[in-house]
Parts: sequence; structure tokens; C-alpha cells
Amino acid sequence: MTSLALCTINSSARSIARLCQVSRSAHGTADFHSFVARYSTLRKCAFLPGGKWSFIRAGTRQMSQASPGRISLGWYGKGVFLAAGAAAVTGVLTAGVSHFQRAEMATKISKVEEEEEGNIRERCKSFMSPPVTDIKVLEQRKDAMSTRMEMLIMETQAAFCKALEEADGGTFRVDRWSRKEGGGGISCVMQDGKIFEKAGVNVSVVFGNLTEEAAKQMRSRGKVLKGKDGKLPFCAMGVSSVIHPKNPHIPTVHFNYRYFEIEEADGTKQWWFGGGTDLTPVYIDLEDAAHFHKTLKKACDKHHPKYYPDFKKWCDNYFYIRHRGETRGIGGIFFDDLDSPNQEEVFNFVKSCAKTVVPCYLPIVYKHLNDSFTPEEKDWQQVRRGRYVEFNLVYDRGVKFGLATPGSRIESILMSLPLTARWEYMHEPKKGTKEAEMMEVVRNPKEWI
Amino acid sequence: MTSLALCTINSSARSIARLCQVSRSAHGTADFHSFVARYSTLRKCAFLPGGKWSFIRAGTRQMSQASPGRISLGWYGKGVFLAAGAAAVTGVLTAGVSHFQRAEMATKISKVEEEEEGNIRERCKSFMSPPVTDIKVLEQRKDAMSTRMEMLIMETQAAFCKALEEADGGTFRVDRWSRKEGGGGISCVMQDGKIFEKAGVNVSVVFGNLTEEAAKQMRSRGKVLKGKDGKLPFCAMGVSSVIHPKNPHIPTVHFNYRYFEIEEADGTKQWWFGGGTDLTPVYIDLEDAAHFHKTLKKACDKHHPKYYPDFKKWCDNYFYIRHRGETRGIGGIFFDDLDSPNQEEVFNFVKSCAKTVVPCYLPIVYKHLNDSFTPEEKDWQQVRRGRYVEFNLVYDRGVKFGLATPGSRIESILMSLPLTARWEYMHEPKKGTKEAEMMEVVRNPKEWI
Repeated sequence: MTSLALCTINSSARSIARLCQVSRSAHGTADFHSFVARYSTLRKCAFLPGGKWSFIRAGTRQMSQASPGRISLGWYGKGVFLAAGAAAVTGVLTAGVSHFQRAEMATKISKVEEEEEGNIRERCKSFMSPPVTDIKVLEQRKDAMSTRMEMLIMETQAAFCKALEEADGGTFRVDRWSRKEGGGGISCVMQDGKIFEKAGVNVSVVFGNLTEEAAKQMRSRGKVLKGKDGKLPFCAMGVSSVIHPKNPHIPTVHFNYRYFEIEEADGTKQWWFGGGTDLTPVYIDLEDAAHFHKTLKKACDKHHPKYYPDFKKWCDNYFYIRHRGETRGIGGIFFDDLDSPNQEEVFNFVKSCAKTVVPCYLPIVYKHLNDSFTPEEKDWQQVRRGRYVEFNLVYDRGVKFGLATPGSRIESILMSLPLTARWEYMHEPKKGTKEAEMMEVVRNPKEWI
Repeated sequence: MTSLALCTINSSARSIARLCQVSRSAHGTADFHSFVARYSTLRKCAFLPGGKWSFIRAGTRQMSQASPGRISLGWYGKGVFLAAGAAAVTGVLTAGVSHFQRAEMATKISKVEEEEEGNIRERCKSFMSPPVTDIKVLEQRKDAMSTRMEMLIMETQAAFCKALEEADGGTFRVDRWSRKEGGGGISCVMQDGKIFEKAGVNVSVVFGNLTEEAAKQMRSRGKVLKGKDGKLPFCAMGVSSVIHPKNPHIPTVHFNYRYFEIEEADGTKQWWFGGGTDLTPVYIDLEDAAHFHKTLKKACDKHHPKYYPDFKKWCDNYFYIRHRGETRGIGGIFFDDLDSPNQEEVFNFVKSCAKTVVPCYLPIVYKHLNDSFTPEEKDWQQVRRGRYVEFNLVYDRGVKFGLATPGSRIESILMSLPLTARWEYMHEPKKGTKEAEMMEVVRNPKEWI
């Protein structure tokens, strides 16, 4: 047994590796239901020895269910309980989302298990590339959060890329790059594939000193960080992805999970996590929207009942094109500056989110794989892509942080932009059309569950 | 004789109105030379009664020549001399351009003539739309700089739009809009024309109170303006235009001339002008570049010998896509915060620049009107358009100011974006190609004269 990716593989893996293939050839709504139904009994995901990604059925359905205040065993097989104490997101959530009250946050969240983060060298074999940090270094400091997070983002990249390759039939180009100021990354891009116009999945692990301009962009809650001579040693890592399909009936998806460490002048180390997954369809499909949000909610609910509603709202507020008065898409979840109740529990939450990316998105891709579309629908997609570009270049903190960080790899930051986009002067869909329905949603974010 | 636009029309206008048509049907380099040669004897531009724009031959060649310290009579027919005293641009020029030294700036600049800014009601007839400010109000305060500038920007809009309509055969859509916080504008857009993919020429005249966010974006030299309770009453007006042609051999042009007045808490009124004209070709054409820059230099030299070299450098520094290490195009001139030596002289300089827009650009349009191009050249144009979008959304102060100003008309601000653009991952032209030549220029700005 080789190459574990997101979780332990077992002997039953091969026998159910065909699930994806089965679904791939089935694109109707009924098949979608069937695919989603199958999904709901799938608990684990892993790379098979041949480098293929697949789903692994959980032992029992009950094991997968999560309830507030109770850990989910389903994801990990065996759970190590940890009484978390009061959890709190102390940050000022952007754009009006209220503070979490520490008192309300008491919950129990699972501690990560040993076998989940087992042999580093072995796990690296399934990655798209060797990790950014030398494997020996990772082995030496295997319990450090920076190591555990780097392994998680590498695994997430591999899992997502391989799922997309399986759907598309194409292959990701893999670019390793290094940053002279410290660190580097692995950019995986598939351009002009059969299904995907542009698919980018990027890992970066960078460190060095923050400029003051970059520091400004870093924390949504605007906490002042005191540097020595204006310099703040930092380490930042994350996986981020934007997938722009060709077919206007397959939505664009974006996710990003990241971890920061920063050292202040007095030696204090600050750390926090951020992330989110959100969907940007060109046309509204209620079933897709519900599937996407329910899948996220399930991952959130395992950790805290307020995570989904609060992070859903944060997402709508964050992915907001203020000058247009429109959200970018139909949202998902988004959080930042998450540093409570403790590092272990936040990491576990982030891990749950990262593992949810494939089950959130791939069923939607398979459902619409062969949907036909008109030139007018393609044009509408291009106009919506224009909005995507506007958000990413004007507001996205990740992009702004990247562009302001000396030595950043611009191609990796801007791979989130679509291959093509369009700006029509005074474009406004006619009332009663599917395009107008989309505009109504982005102007008035709604609940999808 | 009706409808004067940029200057006095006379009886010889009709007889030479065919010049543009002659040139329009001639596209070779030889014809270009002939066109430019003719241009060099053209001094005046006006609308003919039928609403057509044309060039009017100056009385003598000598009259058109400008030299530092000497006014040009050519543009205006009769000159009223004014010893200007020391002129200074006191602003810190962005990105390393040095301060102008007041002592070096002594020059004589022409005072605007009475007949140039004659009957307001009559002049308004040639505009694309009635001006933003009520004509009666303009008449009542006809000597105010805000009135004179509003008339100039309206005239510039009309002259440029009509010149483009003549080249394209299409018609501008004219949208008047008002801003509930005060003021409004006139947006002229031609989309999907025969020659122009998207051509926008916008006038705006807005007033109200500045938000602190918007105030930050306003002045390049970052002067702190003290408002009452954080509010700063302001008036801003300008004409701006971006023209994206379909043919990759016709460059994109941009110009913008603007005027600001702002009132501080103690009642002090500050005013300044800004502006510039710059070219963004898809391929380098040395002849076009020289023509464009020479025409600008001639307009600048009438006012100060340092204007062209300094504002050329400022332009290269301003239109710089920092994260790419590339200029947006081949530059032109750019200046901001210009408030010396006095309001009259700065206005006259701005007027010279505004009048230079058509002679800078139209000969280049006519030269390449029927150039053939390959799909690969069109793709390269789309990649370069992507860069244009990056600059405008990430760095352009005008766009940032607009997006941050409540009540701004977003469609007018973002009409500068091309109809279509493209982002290819890791796109890099092969050595020795015309595309690589373009990249070399944007990475290492050069002198074109």
C-alpha cells in the first residue's frame, strides 16, 4: 500500500475506485441525484497507487454524521476527543458580521489523529511535486503546525488536480518555483482543456520579512503588528484554486486555505488561519446551489454550529463587488484571522474544509458535462467573467497581498483570472430571463439550504 | 456660421473639409507621410455646420511653430502675451521624477483669448449633449475657471467623438447622467463599430463632499487636506477617453484632462489640473510612435521646454504595471497636481494638450485602417488588453477614485476596459518576434523622438 493522500487508504479502496468513472458517464439530473446520494455515503478520499484519485466509502453512515458539540468520527475512522473549552473568533468579521461570543462557542472538536498525518515521505509520493520545504526538514519538525499545514495543502492540491484531470481527460502542467526572499510554490495549471478553460491550483509556502504595505493587506481585522525597524518576519502558506470551465452551465469554483505565522518585535508569535470555498455560476441551478452549500455546512457543523451561518454570511460580504452592488457569485464560506479556540482545533476545521472541496464541486461538474449552450449563453458567461476579474483585481485581499509582496510569482497569483472576459457598456439582461435571475441573486444574496 | 468647437471657424473650413476623407482612403506608409505632412500645416480644428469635424489650415506655417519662451499664435490666430513669471510644478512627481525647480521654469505662456471662449450658448450647440451645468449658470459665471474648463472638456469630447465617427462610420451613443450627490456627466460610447471595438469618451462634472477614502486617492503628492468633520467640499471635472480598436495594428489611445477644486476647513480653496495622453500599441511602429510623441512635444514646448521631457518620464512612471515590471504602452505625457505658475497659464497648457488629442491619434488610425492581421496577432492583442485591464483596475488613480466615490457612475468609469481581454498562463513571446519587440519596449521605456 503506497501513496496516501488525504487520509488512510485501505484495502477496500480499489474496489470502489470506479465510482467516479461511473458518474462521469452519467450527466442527467437523475444521475446527479444518484451521484450525490452515493457521495453522502462516501467518507474518505485517497489516491490509489496509480495516482488516481477516488472516494472511499466510510464504515457506517452514522459515523459520518456530525452534530454540534460532538465530534465526527466519520472522517477519520477513530477519534481522539478533546474538550475544547470556549472557542472564539475574536476578529471583527468584515462588513457587518457580528463578533462571535466566546461564551457561545463552547464545543468539542476532534483532535487530528496520528495515522492521518503518518509517514511524511510516504505521503509526499502522491503530491503533484515534492513539497516546497525539503522533506528532511519536514520530517525533522513533523509536529510543527507549519509542517502539518504544508502537508495538508499539498494533499489538497493533489486531490483536486487529480479529480479535475479525471473529469477533463487533460493533464495539469506543474511548475515549481522558488522565491528569492524565501520559500516558493507549486503551480498546477490546465489551460484550454476539454472541460476547463483555465484551471489553476496553487500551493505557496513563503517566508521572509513583511513590508509595511503588505502587512496592511494581511489581517482583515486590522490589528497593528509591531515590527522591528518596520520589518516583520513571517511565514505564509496556502493552497488556492480557481477553476473556469468552458461550458457556461458549469460554475466557476474558488477555494483557498491558508496559514500565517508572524513574529513581532518582542518575539511574540502570532498565527492564524483563513480560507473558504465559494461558487460562481453563470446561471442559477437551485439543486447545484443546495448541494454546494449543504456539503460545506456539513463540514462546518462538525466543528461548530455557528461556523456555517457566520462564514456563509462572511463569504457574501467578502466576495462583494462594492462598486457594482453585486456579490461575485452565490457564495459558500469564508473566514479569516481564525485563531481560537486553539491551533489544533482551528487546523482540524481547516482540514475538514479542505477535504470538502472535491465533494462540493465535482458532482456539479459531472452533472453539466455535456449540457449544450448557445453563443448568447457563452457571451453572458464572458460578461460574468468580467465581473470576476473586477473582484479579483480590485478587492481580493489575497491578490492585493500577492501583488504587493516583492518576489511574488505573478503568474501564480493571476492564474485566477479567466482565459477570456468581456466588458459590455451598460449590459443589463431583460426582465424574466435566466440572466436577470442571476443578477437578482448577486444583488440580493439568499439562503440556499 | 454656427457651431464652433475647439476654435474659431472661418470661411476656409469647408474647402478643406475633405482632407480627412482623402486620407481615410489612403493607408500605406507613403500616404501616412503625406497625411502627416498635411497635418503639419493644419492648425485649427472645428465642427462644420453639419456636425462634421475637420481640420482648418493655419494662415502661415511660421505661425504654428512654438518655441520655449515664446507663444504660439498658430493655434489661436491672435495672441495676447503674458509674462508668466516663474512657473513651477511643486508636486513630488511620482516614482522618482524629480521636482521642477521654480527658478528653471521662467517662461511666457499665452493667455487665452476672448474670442476663443466667446458666446457660451453658441459654443454649446456643437457639443454631444448640453453641458452638465445649466447653460444659464455657465453664462452667469462665465469667467470662473470651472466654467471655462467645463466648456473645454465638452469641446474636447465633441471634437474627438466626431473625428472617430468620421473614421468609423458609426455613431456614438450619448448618455447623460446625474449624480445624486451633485453633478453628473455625459458618456459617449461606440461599441462594436467598424473600426472601434469599444470607444468611450466621457465628461464628468461632479461636486459634493469628499470621503476620506476618496481624498486619499486624489492627490499624487499626498498633501494632507484638512476637512471639517472629515468632510471636504470639492468640485472635480474632466474629460477622459479610451479607444480600443478592433485591428491589432491600430493602437489603443487614452487621454484625460481634469480640474479639481477643494475647500479646506479654514475656507482655503485649493485647485489643480491634471492630465495626459498616452498610446498603447499592440505592435511597435516607430513612425507612429515618433508622430505621437512629436505632436505632444510640440504642444508642450509652447508652454515650457521641460514639460515634454518631464511629463514623458512621469507618464512612463505612472502607467507602470509594477507587478509585471512593464509599462502599459509606449507612453506619452502625464502630469498631476499642476497648480503653478498660476491658474491661467496651467489652463492654457491643458487646453493645448486637449487640442492635441485628435492630431496625435487620428493619423495613426487612418494609416492602419485596412491593415490585415492574423488570428495570432488578434490573440496577442487580447493578451495585451489583459494587461490594460490589470493596470486600470489595480493602479489607475482615476479608476480608484471613481470606484471609491459614492454615487459614481460605474459604467462610465469602467468603459475604459476593453470589450474583450485574455489571460494566458505563462505567456511569453518567442525571441526575435514582433511580440517580443513589444515586450522589450514595455520593459525598457525608450525615447521616441
